[in-house]
Amino acid sequence: MRRVRYSVAMSLDGYIADPKGGYDWIIMDPDIDFGALFKAFDTVLVGRKSYEAARKQGGGGAMPGMKEYVFSRTLRQADCPDETVSDNPKEVVAALKREKGKDIWLFGGGELFRSLLELGLVDAVEVGIIPVLLGGGLPMLPSPATSSKLKLTSHRMYEKTGTVMLTYAVT
Amino acid sequence: MRRVRYSVAMSLDGYIADPKGGYDWIIMDPDIDFGALFKAFDTVLVGRKSYEAARKQGGGGAMPGMKEYVFSRTLRQADCPDETVSDNPKEVVAALKREKGKDIWLFGGGELFRSLLELGLVDAVEVGIIPVLLGGGLPMLPSPATSSKLKLTSHRMYEKTGTVMLTYAVT
Repeated sequence: MRRVRYSVAMSLDGYIADPKGGYDWIIMDPDIDFGALFKAFDTVLVGRKSYEAARKQGGGGAMPGMKEYVFSRTLRQADCPDETVSDNPKEVVAALKREKGKDIWLFGGGELFRSLLELGLVDAVEVGIIPVLLGGGLPMLPSPATSSKLKLTSHRMYEKTGTVMLTYAVT
Repeated sequence: MRRVRYSVAMSLDGYIADPKGGYDWIIMDPDIDFGALFKAFDTVLVGRKSYEAARKQGGGGAMPGMKEYVFSRTLRQADCPDETVSDNPKEVVAALKREKGKDIWLFGGGELFRSLLELGLVDAVEVGIIPVLLGGGLPMLPSPATSSKLKLTSHRMYEKTGTVMLTYAVT
C-alpha cells in the first residue's frame, strides 16, 4: 500500500517555519537528491495555513506531476483551481491510501500532521534537521498531541551544510 | 577553556520531559558509553525546575565527582545542602568558565539553557534524539528565544534503540 510520509525540514528545536512563517533558515544541501525524493511521490497533502503561506511566498499552484489536496474548513474549491479542496482528511486520505499510486507527501503543516497521526494515517516521519535553533515558530507537531512511538529506519548526514536526514516509521 | 555543553535526551519533536515532567520515554541505549560522557565533566548546572523534578523522582543530591550549581531566585542555600545555589547564572558561569577544570554539563532545563544561550555562555548542544513524538512537555528551548546558528560537529546512530546523538557547536 502507498504510504503517507511527513517529509519536512526542521530546526533542531522542532520548528518547520520561523516565528514569521518564513523558511529562509532552510539551507538546501547540494548533495540532497530532491529529484529522487520528488519522484517517489505523486500526491501532496497540505493544510490550509501552509498552503496560504506557500502562496504568499510566491509559490502555490500544484507541483508538476503531483496531485495536490488542500485541507480546510473555510477555503472553497473555487479558491484553489489547481488543487482539490476538502474538509475531510480522514475519508480523503484513507481513500487515497487504498488507491494505486506512488507515495503520498504530507507537506505540512503540523496541524494536518497531528490530525492524520491521531487517525493512524501517517506511515513515516522524515525530517531534515537544519543546524539552527529558531526559538519559536510553527512546531512540527503542535501541542497537545498524543504521544507516538517511532522506529528509526534510515539516517544520513550531509557534510556541506550539517543537515541530518532521519527517517522513522510510525509504529 | 572549558566548555559549557547542553547535553540532553530529546524527543524528535523537541521535548526534554513529557507533559507530566516524566522521563520514562527515554530509552538508555546499552551502547552509549555514559561513563566516558560523565568523565568529561566535573561540574553540573541545573535550573530550579529540573532540580526539583529530579529530586521528586528520587534523585537529587550531587552526582558523584561533580560539583553542582542550582540556579534559582527562590531556593536558599539551606534547601540544597549538596549543591551551590545561585540566582546569578551570568556571573557564576562566566567565572566557572575562566577556572581550570573539565567541561561543564548544562543538565537542563530549557529555561536555564535559554538564559545562558542569550548570554553567549553555551559552547555546545548535544542531543540524543529518542525515537518518539511526545506531543507536549518541557521544550529543549522554550519559546520565545533568539535564533542561534549551530555547526554539526559529530553524529552517531545507536542501532539497538534508534537513538541518534548529534553534537553541535554554537556559532
